[in-house]
Amino acid sequence: MAAPIDRERVRALYDDYVHFLNSGDFEQWLELFAEDCSYRVVSRENHAQGLPLALIRCDSRAMLADRIAAIRSTQFFVPRIVRHFVSGLRVSRAETEGLEVAAQFLVGESLEHEPPRIHSVGEYRDRVVERIPDGELCFASKWAIYDSPVIQTSLIAPL
Amino acid sequence: MAAPIDRERVRALYDDYVHFLNSGDFEQWLELFAEDCSYRVVSRENHAQGLPLALIRCDSRAMLADRIAAIRSTQFFVPRIVRHFVSGLRVSRAETEGLEVAAQFLVGESLEHEPPRIHSVGEYRDRVVERIPDGELCFASKWAIYDSPVIQTSLIAPL
Amino acid sequence: MAAPIDRERVRALYDDYVHFLNSGDFEQWLELFAEDCSYRVVSRENHAQGLPLALIRCDSRAMLADRIAAIRSTQFFVPRIVRHFVSGLRVSRAETEGLEVAAQFLVGESLEHEPPRIHSVGEYRDRVVERIPDGELCFASKWAIYDSPVIQTSLIAPL
Repeated sequence: MAAPIDRERVRALYDDYVHFLNSGDFEQWLELFAEDCSYRVVSRENHAQGLPLALIRCDSRAMLADRIAAIRSTQFFVPRIVRHFVSGLRVSRAETEGLEVAAQFLVGESLEHEPPRIHSVGEYRDRVVERIPDGELCFASKWAIYDSPVIQTSLIAPL
Repeated sequence: MAAPIDRERVRALYDDYVHFLNSGDFEQWLELFAEDCSYRVVSRENHAQGLPLALIRCDSRAMLADRIAAIRSTQFFVPRIVRHFVSGLRVSRAETEGLEVAAQFLVGESLEHEPPRIHSVGEYRDRVVERIPDGELCFASKWAIYDSPVIQTSLIAPL
Repeated sequence: MAAPIDRERVRALYDDYVHFLNSGDFEQWLELFAEDCSYRVVSRENHAQGLPLALIRCDSRAMLADRIAAIRSTQFFVPRIVRHFVSGLRVSRAETEGLEVAAQFLVGESLEHEPPRIHSVGEYRDRVVERIPDGELCFASKWAIYDSPVIQTSLIAPL
């Protein structure tokens, strides 16, 4: 009896995610997460073996906000621009609440004196819910699982 | 008098194609093809000259299923993860039945001890029809035409 | 009181843009621009500093048509195939007329005897309007801002 899934609305959420993240608009990016969200960046190897080690692990939006603040105040790293590309959005109903979304990501990276290159490739495994009270879609859970353990630069930006 | 083309529905087919292929769910991936489908992986050079040589050529879903079974039972190759990215979906009515769809693809590849890289880039030239009796969209024909004759690894996975 | 933005219609415009450009169908590609369009290809550095220098700068569709004609009649460059990938489409109402659209792009490039590689990565900053009298969406302004000043080949094709 469930209403059909509105894929276009889910697409719009991912478009906004990519836009805010790549343009450095972290306040609006944080707004795309539920308050008690789970956000992780983890290698495929660790994820497949159920190992807890993750490059980033935040268990609430407040933790994620802290992490972003830390990144922004650290100026040790070489300036770079990252761009996210998302494809193959697969949407299904979650067993609990909301929607399960799987998607492919590829992140391109440009440093000052080098040609652009691939930063990382992998898969999102997310759960998307409607926020109360405004009904906007947001991430209850967002796990970015990257395929290659070899990342050419220290991971600074979220995936 | 034809009904307008529902691009979003076509997009969903390509999303599913990418999802099933990249997650190794080949049974569901095969379900996206018509029984008498034509599936080919061919270089742009050969395609442009009308040469019959193709890296993969299957003239039915049964042949494609055989091919997949062969890939899955062969463990000689180095473990790798591939990710497909699709963009620029162009949909028009086919002269015969169904829809003609052209799209760009880029495949990223991750091996165990190397940074991720581009596996191949090219174009899909497909024909999409409604399956009888359930009306779901599926591929009557799917040709993956890759641009560069230089592929860094032996081609194992379908494109 | 404005009508809701039809993202799917905007997506279709970008799909057509990529399709016509990558298949070398420049006549149809030009049709996607308004007559008095502004088209630019500019580095992020110059764009950020407000510097006027651009790799390509056309202030009308007629200028853009000239540029395309020049590219097509020049055969000095090595044959290559480019493929555009667009993600993270962000659509909002323009302060003046029409829609503002931001999107990420990645361009893959294949030369004859080399594996495919990344040509450029960056961001579109566009304004989209309805054409009079047919109401089709077209680009009043399209600026392709590429991230890395290092482009591995001379820029021939538009971004």
